[in-house]
Amino acid sequence: MGEDADGVGVAMPVDGATRLYAIIGCPIAQARSPAVFNRLFGRLGVPAVLVPVEIAPADLAIGLAGLTAIANLDGIIVTVPHKPRMAALADAVAPMGQRVGAVNALRRRPQGGWLADMFDGRGFVAGLAGRGHAVAGRSALLVGAGGAGSAIAFALAEAGIARLHIRDIAPERAVALARRVADACPHLRPTAGPQAEPADIAINATPLGMAAEDPLPLDVQALAPGTLVVDVIMKPARTRLLAQAEARGLPTHAGRHMLDAQVDAIAGFFGLLPPRS
Amino acid sequence: MGEDADGVGVAMPVDGATRLYAIIGCPIAQARSPAVFNRLFGRLGVPAVLVPVEIAPADLAIGLAGLTAIANLDGIIVTVPHKPRMAALADAVAPMGQRVGAVNALRRRPQGGWLADMFDGRGFVAGLAGRGHAVAGRSALLVGAGGAGSAIAFALAEAGIARLHIRDIAPERAVALARRVADACPHLRPTAGPQAEPADIAINATPLGMAAEDPLPLDVQALAPGTLVVDVIMKPARTRLLAQAEARGLPTHAGRHMLDAQVDAIAGFFGLLPPRS
Repeated sequence: MGEDADGVGVAMPVDGATRLYAIIGCPIAQARSPAVFNRLFGRLGVPAVLVPVEIAPADLAIGLAGLTAIANLDGIIVTVPHKPRMAALADAVAPMGQRVGAVNALRRRPQGGWLADMFDGRGFVAGLAGRGHAVAGRSALLVGAGGAGSAIAFALAEAGIARLHIRDIAPERAVALARRVADACPHLRPTAGPQAEPADIAINATPLGMAAEDPLPLDVQALAPGTLVVDVIMKPARTRLLAQAEARGLPTHAGRHMLDAQVDAIAGFFGLLPPRS
Repeated sequence: MGEDADGVGVAMPVDGATRLYAIIGCPIAQARSPAVFNRLFGRLGVPAVLVPVEIAPADLAIGLAGLTAIANLDGIIVTVPHKPRMAALADAVAPMGQRVGAVNALRRRPQGGWLADMFDGRGFVAGLAGRGHAVAGRSALLVGAGGAGSAIAFALAEAGIARLHIRDIAPERAVALARRVADACPHLRPTAGPQAEPADIAINATPLGMAAEDPLPLDVQALAPGTLVVDVIMKPARTRLLAQAEARGLPTHAGRHMLDAQVDAIAGFFGLLPPRS
């Protein structure tokens, strides 16, 4: 989808025959998916609306049961903090979601119940590809082994990254993720630890940078010339990490591309677009 | 609301911060409330959307529990076949809803849970008033003692109708409704039975007329000159009953006014408009 996601589009009017999609999170007001998907529905002429649904963690199971009972609700997008728990609640989980242990989209199965999958990492990789940054055969430093980091690690492995080093403020978490990736993708032996070799791509997958006073997730001065600096943070659009990288003359890649590229993937999963090869 | 409900209006775009309202029914595709309320939200500048929610009768309790868990969902409209059952599921029911034994709107209580009330009958009376047909001091023949008929009977009583005769294809149902109205509104002694005195207003509150081959719910030829003939059926807009009444030169009043007038009442109940006196 790329730039298209922010193109002009008029949402479909909501009437009695409108099909529903929901994005579940807590909080939810910050979610961009409703605006993006509703413009997409308008462009495609699909009589559907994607609505924001705030459900507290303690209410997730009952909330999902209620959404399941809505016969005209066709799909669910999942955001923080529900992605890991939803993997346990879904009726079936596709391989990528199983590897990551978290999901961010659910669609109805023909036999009933929900099939869940995880598109965060694939959206990340597709966002890079959409800006001309292939990952196959390259090396990456991944900072952050939490939910976003896990999804990205498995997607980088799926996309053929040649070398992957994982760092986390909790070192055992980085080691554990490296092991899980190695188990799932035997062609790749990720390394983990505080010190890292030079890499083609340096990725922040921590929340550091959302607040102005956050410390930087990685030392831009220590990166090799030409390193592509990538941030998963969407707000602010230009984090201090990206600003410092630019000041050093390094190429950068902002968080929004991850979401923009995911729209196509999830729309394909929902059957709204032909799935991408 | 009157004509306003069909006036031009542009719905608000749905984004992450949008508040939700739902109309629950089975089926739901025919519901006019989403289009009407979404135009209203647009005119008022309220960042909200009302979405159609199809829930099968067997799933109503779990569906309501799920909707309750949605923190940004502020109100629910209820349509066929859920109105009686929802009166039992709501945490509190206002007096009109208690009398009718059915509800069609729920809002959050400050202490949590749902307060439910019934606006079908009040919308019907307000729709008449909006077209210049006051009911206070008048007489009415009400055909149909089911859900719509019950709501209308209690609202006519509340609005000061002087005489009310109730007729139903199941005579005991008409008798039972007449008794319930008399119990709740001691100033009125409704009568019931197949034969009726002349009345100022003759009302069809049965489903007869939705299908072209339906028999007429009442004999237009038997009505006194000047009788106002009212239909609750919204589709078709001009039922065979109304067409025959017009052909006989009788004044008529179509089903859509009942819904149009309810929009204001329910919007007031939701706190979106100042309540009407």
